[in-house]
Amino acid sequence: MNRIGVAEIVAIGSELLTPLRNDTNSLYLTQKLNELGVVVRRKTVVGDDVEDLARVVSEASQRADLLILMGGLGPTEDDRTREAVSAATGRKLVRDEGWVQWICDRFARAGRVLAENNLQQADLIDGAELLPNTIGTAAGQWIAGPCAIALLPGPPRELRTMFEKECLPRIRPMAAGTPITTRILRITGLTESFTDSLVGPIYRDLKNPVVTILSSPGSIELHLRAIDEGGRTAADLIAGVEELFRAKLGDHVYGTGDENLETVVSRQLLSLGKTIACAESCTGGLLATRLTDISGSSGYFLRGYVSYSNQAKIDDLGVPACLVESHGAVSSQVAEAMASGARSRATADIGVGITGIAGPTGGTETKPVGLVYISVSVGERIETSENRFMGGRSIVRFQATQKALDMVRMMLKSGVVE
Amino acid sequence: MNRIGVAEIVAIGSELLTPLRNDTNSLYLTQKLNELGVVVRRKTVVGDDVEDLARVVSEASQRADLLILMGGLGPTEDDRTREAVSAATGRKLVRDEGWVQWICDRFARAGRVLAENNLQQADLIDGAELLPNTIGTAAGQWIAGPCAIALLPGPPRELRTMFEKECLPRIRPMAAGTPITTRILRITGLTESFTDSLVGPIYRDLKNPVVTILSSPGSIELHLRAIDEGGRTAADLIAGVEELFRAKLGDHVYGTGDENLETVVSRQLLSLGKTIACAESCTGGLLATRLTDISGSSGYFLRGYVSYSNQAKIDDLGVPACLVESHGAVSSQVAEAMASGARSRATADIGVGITGIAGPTGGTETKPVGLVYISVSVGERIETSENRFMGGRSIVRFQATQKALDMVRMMLKSGVVE
Repeated sequence: MNRIGVAEIVAIGSELLTPLRNDTNSLYLTQKLNELGVVVRRKTVVGDDVEDLARVVSEASQRADLLILMGGLGPTEDDRTREAVSAATGRKLVRDEGWVQWICDRFARAGRVLAENNLQQADLIDGAELLPNTIGTAAGQWIAGPCAIALLPGPPRELRTMFEKECLPRIRPMAAGTPITTRILRITGLTESFTDSLVGPIYRDLKNPVVTILSSPGSIELHLRAIDEGGRTAADLIAGVEELFRAKLGDHVYGTGDENLETVVSRQLLSLGKTIACAESCTGGLLATRLTDISGSSGYFLRGYVSYSNQAKIDDLGVPACLVESHGAVSSQVAEAMASGARSRATADIGVGITGIAGPTGGTETKPVGLVYISVSVGERIETSENRFMGGRSIVRFQATQKALDMVRMMLKSGVVE
Repeated sequence: MNRIGVAEIVAIGSELLTPLRNDTNSLYLTQKLNELGVVVRRKTVVGDDVEDLARVVSEASQRADLLILMGGLGPTEDDRTREAVSAATGRKLVRDEGWVQWICDRFARAGRVLAENNLQQADLIDGAELLPNTIGTAAGQWIAGPCAIALLPGPPRELRTMFEKECLPRIRPMAAGTPITTRILRITGLTESFTDSLVGPIYRDLKNPVVTILSSPGSIELHLRAIDEGGRTAADLIAGVEELFRAKLGDHVYGTGDENLETVVSRQLLSLGKTIACAESCTGGLLATRLTDISGSSGYFLRGYVSYSNQAKIDDLGVPACLVESHGAVSSQVAEAMASGARSRATADIGVGITGIAGPTGGTETKPVGLVYISVSVGERIETSENRFMGGRSIVRFQATQKALDMVRMMLKSGVVE
């Protein structure tokens, strides 16, 4: 059996050679391949030109053990991957009648008209195995050989599903090399430079695990990557460093892996059997959107109010008009009244209120863009924070919801909610 | 003088072959090159291996007129770009004494200790021109020839500054192609393959403009890229094809460039002086989030209700309990009552109601995952659509808001709202 130690990834599509789009699928693929001990040695982006593409395929298949091609499997004239691989390998294309049937059925079910060009999605390189697509109509392909070649669709969900279901089981038994184990710690409430000043001295000179800090507004990630070494497993080596990190960072570590704050909070709410309602002004529904982005959210989320106008705050949340008049809509008093109002209207255990200035306009000297008040009401307790977020409108809005979720997380964690 | 028509971009650094980092510099470079008429034909990402890198350099310099290498110019052991280009071109490295002095001065000024390896940043390929770095200590390099080679630093600020100051003036007089003009048409309400069957016959054999279809759930983009040709300007050539496209696609073209549906709808609302309110169940606030993502949204958005529970629909929107009981929460009747309820509660000109099953759980035989009812209430009129969206939870939710925005757009366009 051939061994797979080195892979190359080729992203296909002229749009990826414009200033408009970048390949991001390769990050996911690299992660999955690394976990099996397969290293990615080169990534290439090529356009829809068949000759160019065929040249890339034949060159790369001489260097690597596995070549992953993604994109160019659609139904249009620009989708030339099948043709190029056929040219590079000298094998002809054969239409797969089973997949033709599958495409026809799918169009019929959806009540859509099938165009002739859709059927080219069933053209297989002679000798290739068909990789079923459970989401779209483009069939994937797997060509065994000294360099195995996988043809995968470009849309991320189709690519991921197909890679996990069809490619991983084929690659795993052939994978050579030491698996790289990755662990991600997710942190909120600290700046990147402050996080680095806390944990830098721990990881600075480490070679295994290697630690990388990635930062985005409202969230910082520490990536730990390790291999088995000197009788210790990668997991063990990572655990040792993670413990040191957690001792420095405490509750600022809100999660691991790819779990976001809404996932963590939803788990807390479900396990405590508590319900939540929210009232938002400047975030315009983003907090509700995040809280309901998780399947099963009807188990804890009761309702949300996007009380953009003052009248909405008064009508729907019972915020006293005099409070708005005396303190202004952007004030801790109004945030508190919104939180309590949402909670009592919904008879929820927890109420959240957010009011602020998302910008870029609407700021004043005393109430600048980025000023956001957030209140969380639980039992007899109400907590309010005054925040000054930096960045554009979307970034301010996201950070405000991040902070609100974190306040809920901390209150649930502290046992305030019985 | 050599002419530059085709460029290749190579990003160098093993960290770019991990799951953590992606090359984004190339989008900036592509934009700048395209503006001069230089097309990018291939992008490659390679690690710190000298042999690999040297091979990429010699292969690419046989295909392209300009090769841009970025990264690997630092002072560490991993910075091997100079060495690799030296190997690929057969020219030796020569230390530039002027740049050595510059590095020394800079370290002295910053009170930092100079390590010997810092001086390798002054090693030039024999015959190369030095490109001064005004931000960091890595010198860039320009090697003239049938394929010009630029060595640029990887950090985005250093790269951009050096490219603009040093490379653009060198490339401009040699740029062979004509500047590329891009125009994007944005389409909704059609599938990718149906769009292609409509416009494919128009653009299939066109070379100028070149047309690319990009598809994502709920939105399709047609990218038209053209150059001046035969006495006609690129803009003129694009306008001709755009007219043919619009004749086929009609109102399905909702925007151009990077404007999304919420931007288009907000512009319509502001110009007509109309207000909107919405009531959402399965979309959980995403419609409100999108409508308020635009600065100035308080000019048209009054309020939103995320009526997740049945009680919320009854309390806040006045949906009759009997309607929910007899037709179920996911029904056209409830969607209509939600739209009317939101509108009258808020005294808005337009009310939108959305109810459905976002999945992945909660579907039944008669009401499957992806079934979403959307109502828009305006004046005496109420329009309701029954939709069956495919894809995961987030994609169903996004598509539902996309459809809702599009219904509002079409009703505003039709003049229903006076």
